[in-house]
Amino acid sequence: MKRKLRMGMAGGGPGAFIGAVHRMAARLDGKIELVCGAFSTDPERNRLMAEKLFLPEERCYPDYETMFREESRLPEGERMDFVAITTPNVTHFKIASEALRNGFHVICEKPMTWSLEEALRLRDLVRESGLIFALMHNYSAYPMIRQMRRMIEEGKIGTVRKVVASYDLGWLSAPNAGKQAAWRVNPQISGIAACVGDIGTHAEHLIEFVTGLEITELSADLSTFVEGRVLDDDATILLHFSNGAKGVIELSEVACGEENQFKLRVYGSEGCLEWSQQTPEDLIWKTNDAAMRVLRRGWAETDASAHLLSRLPAGHPEGFIEAFANLYSDFADALCAYMEGRECQTWFPSVESGVRGMNFIENAVRSSENHAQWRKLERI
Amino acid sequence: MKRKLRMGMAGGGPGAFIGAVHRMAARLDGKIELVCGAFSTDPERNRLMAEKLFLPEERCYPDYETMFREESRLPEGERMDFVAITTPNVTHFKIASEALRNGFHVICEKPMTWSLEEALRLRDLVRESGLIFALMHNYSAYPMIRQMRRMIEEGKIGTVRKVVASYDLGWLSAPNAGKQAAWRVNPQISGIAACVGDIGTHAEHLIEFVTGLEITELSADLSTFVEGRVLDDDATILLHFSNGAKGVIELSEVACGEENQFKLRVYGSEGCLEWSQQTPEDLIWKTNDAAMRVLRRGWAETDASAHLLSRLPAGHPEGFIEAFANLYSDFADALCAYMEGRECQTWFPSVESGVRGMNFIENAVRSSENHAQWRKLERI
Amino acid sequence: MKRKLRMGMAGGGPGAFIGAVHRMAARLDGKIELVCGAFSTDPERNRLMAEKLFLPEERCYPDYETMFREESRLPEGERMDFVAITTPNVTHFKIASEALRNGFHVICEKPMTWSLEEALRLRDLVRESGLIFALMHNYSAYPMIRQMRRMIEEGKIGTVRKVVASYDLGWLSAPNAGKQAAWRVNPQISGIAACVGDIGTHAEHLIEFVTGLEITELSADLSTFVEGRVLDDDATILLHFSNGAKGVIELSEVACGEENQFKLRVYGSEGCLEWSQQTPEDLIWKTNDAAMRVLRRGWAETDASAHLLSRLPAGHPEGFIEAFANLYSDFADALCAYMEGRECQTWFPSVESGVRGMNFIENAVRSSENHAQWRKLERI
Amino acid sequence: MKRKLRMGMAGGGPGAFIGAVHRMAARLDGKIELVCGAFSTDPERNRLMAEKLFLPEERCYPDYETMFREESRLPEGERMDFVAITTPNVTHFKIASEALRNGFHVICEKPMTWSLEEALRLRDLVRESGLIFALMHNYSAYPMIRQMRRMIEEGKIGTVRKVVASYDLGWLSAPNAGKQAAWRVNPQISGIAACVGDIGTHAEHLIEFVTGLEITELSADLSTFVEGRVLDDDATILLHFSNGAKGVIELSEVACGEENQFKLRVYGSEGCLEWSQQTPEDLIWKTNDAAMRVLRRGWAETDASAHLLSRLPAGHPEGFIEAFANLYSDFADALCAYMEGRECQTWFPSVESGVRGMNFIENAVRSSENHAQWRKLERI
Repeated sequence: MKRKLRMGMAGGGPGAFIGAVHRMAARLDGKIELVCGAFSTDPERNRLMAEKLFLPEERCYPDYETMFREESRLPEGERMDFVAITTPNVTHFKIASEALRNGFHVICEKPMTWSLEEALRLRDLVRESGLIFALMHNYSAYPMIRQMRRMIEEGKIGTVRKVVASYDLGWLSAPNAGKQAAWRVNPQISGIAACVGDIGTHAEHLIEFVTGLEITELSADLSTFVEGRVLDDDATILLHFSNGAKGVIELSEVACGEENQFKLRVYGSEGCLEWSQQTPEDLIWKTNDAAMRVLRRGWAETDASAHLLSRLPAGHPEGFIEAFANLYSDFADALCAYMEGRECQTWFPSVESGVRGMNFIENAVRSSENHAQWRKLERI
Repeated sequence: MKRKLRMGMAGGGPGAFIGAVHRMAARLDGKIELVCGAFSTDPERNRLMAEKLFLPEERCYPDYETMFREESRLPEGERMDFVAITTPNVTHFKIASEALRNGFHVICEKPMTWSLEEALRLRDLVRESGLIFALMHNYSAYPMIRQMRRMIEEGKIGTVRKVVASYDLGWLSAPNAGKQAAWRVNPQISGIAACVGDIGTHAEHLIEFVTGLEITELSADLSTFVEGRVLDDDATILLHFSNGAKGVIELSEVACGEENQFKLRVYGSEGCLEWSQQTPEDLIWKTNDAAMRVLRRGWAETDASAHLLSRLPAGHPEGFIEAFANLYSDFADALCAYMEGRECQTWFPSVESGVRGMNFIENAVRSSENHAQWRKLERI
Repeated sequence: MKRKLRMGMAGGGPGAFIGAVHRMAARLDGKIELVCGAFSTDPERNRLMAEKLFLPEERCYPDYETMFREESRLPEGERMDFVAITTPNVTHFKIASEALRNGFHVICEKPMTWSLEEALRLRDLVRESGLIFALMHNYSAYPMIRQMRRMIEEGKIGTVRKVVASYDLGWLSAPNAGKQAAWRVNPQISGIAACVGDIGTHAEHLIEFVTGLEITELSADLSTFVEGRVLDDDATILLHFSNGAKGVIELSEVACGEENQFKLRVYGSEGCLEWSQQTPEDLIWKTNDAAMRVLRRGWAETDASAHLLSRLPAGHPEGFIEAFANLYSDFADALCAYMEGRECQTWFPSVESGVRGMNFIENAVRSSENHAQWRKLERI
Repeated sequence: MKRKLRMGMAGGGPGAFIGAVHRMAARLDGKIELVCGAFSTDPERNRLMAEKLFLPEERCYPDYETMFREESRLPEGERMDFVAITTPNVTHFKIASEALRNGFHVICEKPMTWSLEEALRLRDLVRESGLIFALMHNYSAYPMIRQMRRMIEEGKIGTVRKVVASYDLGWLSAPNAGKQAAWRVNPQISGIAACVGDIGTHAEHLIEFVTGLEITELSADLSTFVEGRVLDDDATILLHFSNGAKGVIELSEVACGEENQFKLRVYGSEGCLEWSQQTPEDLIWKTNDAAMRVLRRGWAETDASAHLLSRLPAGHPEGFIEAFANLYSDFADALCAYMEGRECQTWFPSVESGVRGMNFIENAVRSSENHAQWRKLERI
């Protein structure tokens, strides 16, 4: 890498949680610098954000269209290289397609788009552009998730038979849960699903990533527990996999008392692996014929794929920001290789993952509308 | 209580796990003495067991029919008061009905019978006899389960919205899992379900016990992962409850690496409660507006209903045998009150619980046969 | 074993914690029956206890002297075989010596005696009598403690370098902590130490048992935090071991908020082992070159010595009473072998352990009186 | 803050653990930019580091003297504002004093200096200079440590009676533990202590920080377990506090199998608080009259002082780098206020903390040389 990569930002105004995370993640490894942004549609809040970020006034843009237009006019040594999209779902497609059209690479929050139809169109645009598109399924970048994937790949637990994921938060337990919550339960902004879109796609993506299996069929039971709410705030989804394995995703955003409780267990013919996001440095490995093992990030018996995503020695806790930064770092390496015309082995969730996620949402909602009817998850 | 109660035993020969637990549980509080048994159909093993238990030869019977006949001829001050049935499922109905016919009270292993039809007939027999019948859903007798039930009853977590149970063992992961396993997967002995009968009924019972809600509808996805096996060894079951709550029971006996992992989470509008059988002394209570609390058996903030089932000060671990013994102790108190013509407040799972359990099995199997079709769980 | 062994009991009246535990432990395995007792010096409470235990009136004795005298006059097929001493410290010596004099074997609560001098005299009496004497250091009978001992013996963690024990309870945090507490802080009844005697000897015994090392030197810093109290309620004790290892015992009974928190870590040149009494089924094994392992009672990689003390399959929690019962069971086997003139391999803490414990107390108190002066722990 | 602060770096060449952490921590919040460095005395490694950090060649200096001299000649709008010292102990004093002499503020790794004498001289220099000096006791910047401090200050656990700290690592278990280890056990580079200097000072600082008490007296038992090693690799230190409380610090770098296990428990007359560095988001609060509470970073019942150091909502794990970055962020705010002539409330460990730490080392070593003689820790 010969220079820092230059990031522009859509969204992430004052108070926005995920926008701030994107910035910290982008900074952490020193490979990326933020050079411009359209942080808020409110001019004053937009300006304040830019100031807080020490950006020059002229690179704080009133909207993403202006940002892409103006930046693309700057000389190569100055203009942004890619945009991070951290706005609500409904705008993802428009911003991403506009970015691609202007030649900018994209890193995009999940769910990828507002609808499956948009997802398919975006995939076409990405393919046509030849540009790099990364989808921010950050949980896939925890080192011990890579360890889990590798161990399953290596057959350490035999043939996968059963997958159990649960993702529970309590933040939508009451009707008014603040601004960050409001748009997520508004179908105009969020799409056809709230809970299934917001956290269900994380579970779906992580399951397929970790097991290397495809979900082929699902039966979903969505609920809306809080009165007056239109979209789902809870769901349980039965799964069938390509190899005959079975599974279940249990989801709730009205799981009152839970912080961000995302857990995944995979059972195979020879053992099981268990991971929990709130203790992300542990991977529990159990078999019938040995003592339970707790593999720890940075410690013995861990794989190179996990070490590569690790910054500190074992026992010095890494967390959410570090996992997020892993995707940024791998995206940056890929971008750099792209610019230099090199091959690059780094991995991050792609526009394909986004299409699968939107297809998952679509089918879960349709299944639930038909009393949890089983639906095939076709490859599209 | 003026004298120890006298127990006879059907089953529980050398090497039988649950029979030995019944005996330890019966002994623990000194309210019960074992006076006779028909432990094994193998005469030599039967004799050996009786000898090991210091029983006189004449009270070691070749079979349960003989036991009931001979014991009922003994004088009141000598003959057994009740029988503990610890044999495989297929014999429960015959032994229990014969016991009742001879005027003996019954404590019976779960699932209650081999079929729903037998369960309904047994209920009639129990009602007609006026005798005491207890079903050994031992998990309901853990002190912190009583605490959980009490807190839900008191509204500590508001209206119940979501129930998540999982019960995973790895012992049937391979085709040959020993003698204890063999009969459980044999439909002639076990009934129409293996996993759902063996552990699913524990989950079903505990959920209804703890929440005070009824499961009204279910959709079940049963699997058989081990080749050559006829009955289910894994299942996931979606639930709807009487008050509109939703739930899921995730079950597996091919969860390779798991010991006896039974977990229960209940989410309400105001908070959640979480219990795990492998750390039975903890009850986790989370809400959105307070720090997480871990209520501990014997410590502050625990209810009288939990204290009553507790023998030791906090920090001196109690476990499975103690919970089991709680049912025996409460059964003994009820029996004693019965004999003395007194009312008695103690609780234990009844023949009604057994009918519900068998109905649950019946409907889960039928649902799964029809691609997880939703089925009503009628009150019968 | 041809018959149940017959136990008499000194102490353990209504409300006494440890007396009740002795009875449950003695019952659990069906090898022992309680036949008589002198439970309380208060005649009414004594009578009530006997009634609750279904003992015949004539075997409820007003005091231990009468019990021993009268029982020794009963025919061999009737009289008690051994006594369980569960009274406060000050009476242990008198009761134990009287029991031995009358030919009864003894199982005795810890600390063994009121003073070191008594301990030495009791050892002489035990030796002279040729009878069996067991000291109730119950923690040594947890299966995973035996596993820990075995692994250290086998060199699994190399040469022991450092031992860290802590034992914390909060029950004496306030001046008035009830009847069970009152005598423990009264030097007339308890001896020269409270905290060091009550829980310090448990730590001392477990450390030497598990490591196979002897403490050769100590430096103790005892404290009394609650005003008006005469004896220690807190202590920290530095240790040197026979092989050059170092250690520390941290003790407190004013550790407000703690239940019965007894933890032990042993570090060797090749790894460490860690156990905690509140999760007694886990033994944590860490090394520098492998993943952390959690050995679980009843599961793979556990030793025969641990299996022998285990009643249930893994995942069915055993606890304090079961550990206690292990000592009773092994004591019973030894007693039976004694009666039949056979050798017996079972182990339990002996009068020698009691002497070491009293010597530990003596030296800890003397060290602390001299500003934590180092004192040799001579073999005596 | 009107512009990013400009950091220079002494040390932190390729492969250096703590130097990399300083850089990530400095970057995370976007308040600081690295502008120059003298990373390594090896010119090639120095150059490589600068290149990797995208620094211009002219600001990669051959040594710290050159860096300070050249930077101080740059115009105000360009030159570095402060230096981060991440070299081995022996050079801290020289680099820090040279930085101060040239008008640069300092952020310095611990232990502060090679000797107590240097610490006292450095304190004079800091006082004379009026510049800002921060010592990197990063553990004090975990949000839940601030929470712990605040709760003790507020009397939530009453009067502190007992403090128990343990800090265990296994990395020095074998004679050759790599380059990072080599200098730490070399008295020419490390000073009079290894283990006590490296991790003991962390424990000493955290204890005083959290309790608000001063250690007034200590008795230390240092050991060297690995043959051929000159300095201590293990220690246990008894403590007396200003208010009559007692304590113990248990330390080891030969605790084979431990990663970076730093734990702290504080017992007061009304309850206790417990924290462990490997689960830094939890603060356990126990009392005798309420259920155990687990306060979680970002969740209910946490204090403003903890929230201020928190970047993410609860359940999104923060860790070591974030805590480290908290000190950098607060240092940056203080520096900015200094430049603008404003007051600033942020806190970070100061040169006074460094003097106390070096005094602690000095006395621990002297105590241990005299068979753990008690020594007063005078205020100096």
